[in-house]
Amino acid sequence: MNAAPLPTTPTRDAALALDRTDPLAFARSRFSLPDGVIYLDGNSLGALPASTAARVQHVVTAEWGRSLIRGWNDHGWMEAGANIGASISRLIGATPDSVIVADNTSTNVFKLATAALRLRPNRGVIVTEAENFPTDLYVLEGIAAVLGHEIRRVDRSDLTAAIDHDTALVVLTEVDYRSGYRLDMASITAAAHEQGALMLWDLAHSAGAHDVALDDIDADFAIGCGYKFLNGGPGAPAFCYVNRRLHDAARPMIQGWLGHAEPFAFAANYEPADGVRRLTVGTPPVVSMAALAEGVATFDDIEMTAVRAKGVELTTFFIGLIDTLLPDVGFELITPRSASQRGSQVTLSHEHGYPIMQALIARGVIGDFRPPNLVRFGLAPLYVRFVDVFDAVQHLVDIMATREFDQSQFHERRNVT
Amino acid sequence: MNAAPLPTTPTRDAALALDRTDPLAFARSRFSLPDGVIYLDGNSLGALPASTAARVQHVVTAEWGRSLIRGWNDHGWMEAGANIGASISRLIGATPDSVIVADNTSTNVFKLATAALRLRPNRGVIVTEAENFPTDLYVLEGIAAVLGHEIRRVDRSDLTAAIDHDTALVVLTEVDYRSGYRLDMASITAAAHEQGALMLWDLAHSAGAHDVALDDIDADFAIGCGYKFLNGGPGAPAFCYVNRRLHDAARPMIQGWLGHAEPFAFAANYEPADGVRRLTVGTPPVVSMAALAEGVATFDDIEMTAVRAKGVELTTFFIGLIDTLLPDVGFELITPRSASQRGSQVTLSHEHGYPIMQALIARGVIGDFRPPNLVRFGLAPLYVRFVDVFDAVQHLVDIMATREFDQSQFHERRNVT
Repeated sequence: MNAAPLPTTPTRDAALALDRTDPLAFARSRFSLPDGVIYLDGNSLGALPASTAARVQHVVTAEWGRSLIRGWNDHGWMEAGANIGASISRLIGATPDSVIVADNTSTNVFKLATAALRLRPNRGVIVTEAENFPTDLYVLEGIAAVLGHEIRRVDRSDLTAAIDHDTALVVLTEVDYRSGYRLDMASITAAAHEQGALMLWDLAHSAGAHDVALDDIDADFAIGCGYKFLNGGPGAPAFCYVNRRLHDAARPMIQGWLGHAEPFAFAANYEPADGVRRLTVGTPPVVSMAALAEGVATFDDIEMTAVRAKGVELTTFFIGLIDTLLPDVGFELITPRSASQRGSQVTLSHEHGYPIMQALIARGVIGDFRPPNLVRFGLAPLYVRFVDVFDAVQHLVDIMATREFDQSQFHERRNVT
Repeated sequence: MNAAPLPTTPTRDAALALDRTDPLAFARSRFSLPDGVIYLDGNSLGALPASTAARVQHVVTAEWGRSLIRGWNDHGWMEAGANIGASISRLIGATPDSVIVADNTSTNVFKLATAALRLRPNRGVIVTEAENFPTDLYVLEGIAAVLGHEIRRVDRSDLTAAIDHDTALVVLTEVDYRSGYRLDMASITAAAHEQGALMLWDLAHSAGAHDVALDDIDADFAIGCGYKFLNGGPGAPAFCYVNRRLHDAARPMIQGWLGHAEPFAFAANYEPADGVRRLTVGTPPVVSMAALAEGVATFDDIEMTAVRAKGVELTTFFIGLIDTLLPDVGFELITPRSASQRGSQVTLSHEHGYPIMQALIARGVIGDFRPPNLVRFGLAPLYVRFVDVFDAVQHLVDIMATREFDQSQFHERRNVT
């Protein structure tokens, strides 16, 4: 592969030296990581924060078990979605009252997309990237099947050209889940607005991975995931962002009681709550919310610019090691070499990608596989060390040298990773 | 009040005697109940099962913490919704593959109502009860605002007459959350079908409270709550039922990746999964699912007919005590005296209902208040004892005799209970 600039000589000692001077090194102690594992899949499921187990236990035994129904008043359960949303807002460049935690990412895409389409009733087109994350595409298809919109799925290079005066909404994921390619949110949002379209960003692989500036770029809507870089636990609730400009105008199609102006009035007719709370639907999942709160708290006192800086260094180091240590055995770097064009992940393609990843996992190097042939490594800046990157690449080099991946057990297909 | 037949003399000893012969008495040990509390709000938030804390702790520390992303393969996380759904199916008279756990009740009403409306494209009316649970009404309003349906909100006595050939869907809650009035699911479902309409039942106050026979009455759709009588914890995921007749025909409007036929193929286009799984949307909330699994497991080896029998005895005993022990101090029994017409709750109205309930809670008798003037007692048959009912009524008698509820602190309005 082509050489990329390396921050230092690619040796294990050099990696250890980078860890010693890493200003975010302290953050790793905020997590409870298993021994013998190099965890490079925090972009799929974030690691367990050190504080989560005790907090969850407290919520279950003390709050639920002893307070029972009084917990809603006594322990702030009802406010969890807004409170955690406010914590997340700092990570994504939003005012605290513009973000709320509720439901899952797919449902949130549905909620925000249908709300957006109601704001552009005379436009019939939704623009998205052909290679957008499948669930986003599925959700848009589902909406279009009922409401009759045309979905324009275009290549990345045609995105802004595809937005026109018929476009009601543009739905894009900032960081491509396979390649790690990072779109330019500011320019695309501006292009959408220029045509009078609204912009909905999927921040699944952004929130907690790098700094995002939703308010500054004047995005309209955004959603993001609680269980990837935010470390909220498997299937953690997701978040919604609505630009303050739209707080009064946005009307959800799923009108649940929690989004009512006065949920406990049990009124006969729906009256939307002020602001982003109207995008909530049902009773907040208290135990999951507690776990997510701890996940988001792993970012306390940490600036997202520092997280981004480390993410760039980790991915740069990774790519440099691949260039230097990995012989020409059929890998291709899928992630852009330009740091500004990538998120906090490195993806390689290989015709034997699936068994190669299984062989890595068997050695304790946990990344994941994505069809058709991609091995993917997420580098969560709070807990991945440079030495982890070095060791992971060394394992990969060894696996290729020994053809360990040929072993039959590595070819059995499983659902995840 | 008018006398109702009492199972025995209304003394505390009589209550203790009923507990001694209660065939479900053993089930109370499946819960971890706080000392000094008589918990009569399991219809709003079920009590903590004794096994939940350890199970949740295991899922957090061992499954998530140590398996990390491998947990999806190694610990059956992906199947939790179907597995718990199968456990719930026995409680509501459904085939195991017709029930799945996902999302919250409000979102599930949305999902099933929109799926139902697509099956009746030429009919423009949704029939519901004017006094249906507010979130059901709100969700229907939200759908109608976008899709243009007329919502016919009618009195209970006019329900079947209101269903006609324009009716696409009838949406009703079996047990009224205020009065505890229980509708006749079989006859109403038959009336809907007679007009060619589909029937969606909200079982929020039914599942886990008494036997339900969804398949036998040929209901089309149903939803229910995980955190009330199913003891899944605050904000636990909810369930969806789809009659097998409709498994192939029902198309969700919210097309999430988890409802895809092959979620891990990351295909570009949506293909619905077989059966009820297509009604799932996003990544399952693993920790909440684990808690719900323990909640549903409190029903293991218990027949719902036995649960119903005890529920009838508890409510009958409660009403008898009210009739006998409570002087004429302004209460009115709102719950039907006919056991066949009520769920497992007793509701009284009183002009000072709010402070009366607060005074009861201060004494450790936890029921709840519902506007405008209702004090509500849920009698969860698995853990409420006859002596709890006796003591609760005795506290109520004392509070009325002393006018304890006049104290100013009991008049401060709070959100819940």
